[in-house]
Amino acid sequence: MLPDVSDDAPTLREDGDCIVILDQTLLPGQTRFVALRSLDDTAHAIRVMQVRGAPLIGATAAYGVALGLAEDASDARLERVIEILAATRPTAVNLHWALGRMRRVLQKSALATRRQSAWNEARAIAEEDKSANAAIGQHGLPLIAAIHAAFGNEKNNPPSPLSGKGGDYFRQAAPATVNVMTHCNAGRLATVAHGTALAPVYAAHAAGIPVHVWVSETRPRNQGLLTVWELREAGVPHTLIADNAAGLLMTQGKVDLVIVGADRIAANGDAANKVGTYLKALAARANGVPFYVAAPLSTIDFACPTGADIPIEERAAEELGAGQTPVANPAFDVTPAALIDGIVSERGVALAGDLMRWKS
Amino acid sequence: MLPDVSDDAPTLREDGDCIVILDQTLLPGQTRFVALRSLDDTAHAIRVMQVRGAPLIGATAAYGVALGLAEDASDARLERVIEILAATRPTAVNLHWALGRMRRVLQKSALATRRQSAWNEARAIAEEDKSANAAIGQHGLPLIAAIHAAFGNEKNNPPSPLSGKGGDYFRQAAPATVNVMTHCNAGRLATVAHGTALAPVYAAHAAGIPVHVWVSETRPRNQGLLTVWELREAGVPHTLIADNAAGLLMTQGKVDLVIVGADRIAANGDAANKVGTYLKALAARANGVPFYVAAPLSTIDFACPTGADIPIEERAAEELGAGQTPVANPAFDVTPAALIDGIVSERGVALAGDLMRWKS
Repeated sequence: MLPDVSDDAPTLREDGDCIVILDQTLLPGQTRFVALRSLDDTAHAIRVMQVRGAPLIGATAAYGVALGLAEDASDARLERVIEILAATRPTAVNLHWALGRMRRVLQKSALATRRQSAWNEARAIAEEDKSANAAIGQHGLPLIAAIHAAFGNEKNNPPSPLSGKGGDYFRQAAPATVNVMTHCNAGRLATVAHGTALAPVYAAHAAGIPVHVWVSETRPRNQGLLTVWELREAGVPHTLIADNAAGLLMTQGKVDLVIVGADRIAANGDAANKVGTYLKALAARANGVPFYVAAPLSTIDFACPTGADIPIEERAAEELGAGQTPVANPAFDVTPAALIDGIVSERGVALAGDLMRWKS
Repeated sequence: MLPDVSDDAPTLREDGDCIVILDQTLLPGQTRFVALRSLDDTAHAIRVMQVRGAPLIGATAAYGVALGLAEDASDARLERVIEILAATRPTAVNLHWALGRMRRVLQKSALATRRQSAWNEARAIAEEDKSANAAIGQHGLPLIAAIHAAFGNEKNNPPSPLSGKGGDYFRQAAPATVNVMTHCNAGRLATVAHGTALAPVYAAHAAGIPVHVWVSETRPRNQGLLTVWELREAGVPHTLIADNAAGLLMTQGKVDLVIVGADRIAANGDAANKVGTYLKALAARANGVPFYVAAPLSTIDFACPTGADIPIEERAAEELGAGQTPVANPAFDVTPAALIDGIVSERGVALAGDLMRWKS
């Protein structure tokens, strides 16, 4: 059971002839909704990251196609609309996946009903994202439950009689908490609902497993604060850290599991995600901490052979806020499949090197 | 030859009965100097990081002893002064090294001349820091020069006659730049002069070797901006990045060498440095990038067997600026000796596992 936390402040919803999004550039300070009434509104919202997160970008772009066909649903207009939306962000493949799906469906649709078909298909994409992420939560839950069960064995076995403190031991034993580390925001705010990396966390929380999340700040845009915001809303214990602290916490045994999202997964299992993910994967491997990527199938780019083929978005220097200082600001990095213990999708959990079995 | 960039804005200098420091909490926005007139002033300056960087903390604390003996130079007062200064920062061992040296010298000094002896010894510590760091620059320079020479071989060898473009090749060849990555600030601002990790960079720059520095922001306190400030002052090309981007740049072949400073090096070569250093060391090893630690002998704690014995300072949650959010804010991490290709001190370059030869 996933708590439907998105009821309070949905990331994306229809409202008559427009769609309404939660403006994530204003979070966590302000909860403000913005109506997107046109193609331009939608392209702008994706570009400036009012909506962000690979799955949410995909669903929003699908609605952007519907909005873009309002006055002209011709083939030429359809191609122009798709071209404009495709140019907004280069790395997240869900954007291209959603646009490709819209094109395929709408090319088969008569002109007279094409606009309505676009709304229907965008709605289907959004609904499928919700159910895919709910399934990710259920498939990921056993990873957390298994760690919790192992703790139980370690911490609740009767201590050796030699210690002579059995009674105290049991009275003092706190419930064993599973410490999950994530990066960026791959929670419900990155999706239409439930999240990807956080879906198993929410599922564990709902199942009564004590879980605590290490949230890394995620410079330069601080999407960790979005994760803090939604975890607080959901009542899941969490602690914010500087990105730099991730390795130390692992060496100290304070991290039991790392789960991150992805913006594009290559056919060989290499995964592009928010820059800094790769450093966490290296630290996890060095310290024997399991490292999982959670993403819907729409994030897997079977046409992309390896991580080296994934384009890495370079964003504006201003994001680092350092005036005239020369800046490099790549937004993603690639974690090689060899560092990933498994990929969780709506189909289950697969080894990163075995994704082809999910190719439909 | 090291350019004496510290003439313009020295980090620490004597001025009559007080010492004058450059307030590093105001950099890079303001260049303001603060007079420290008492023990309390000095302890405060170290605690709030108006002075920071292990070597500079050590020298400042030595002067703090002299200031603390102004009205009472008794044995009891000496112990009290040392106790107060020792409590300011836990990880940097140079602080304890300098205080221990002051104690040894002053215990042998007659009461009547103890105050003057304290000033003399503090001055000696500061002068020795300058010369140690200048020597680190000279010992580290060959690391950069060797990479530059190797580039020369690759890029300037005549291309195969089959290419038929020899002339163009030579005309287009830009001077090969050595890309050095560092973390935090281990430049002149972290020392009395010259820096530790940046000393070899300054030496290379002075020797005419084209060198460019990747400067990571260093959250949560952004000491990378101090590094930007002093590199700009010295005319050394540099680019600021988010800490998260370090791994990607290494996978892209954009980093030739990593040099960092240290706050305490254990006898076995494990090195505590600003949190996030360990992540860079992991990425360097995974990508075949040499990783060096540069520090004076005063940073080596021969009494500390391994990195596990180094206390890690936990600093205030406010440094992450996230209001009431639960925060963990460890200021250092430990890079195991196995990830360090060498340690550069004023005595030369040693394998991290072979420091005992420097124990005098």
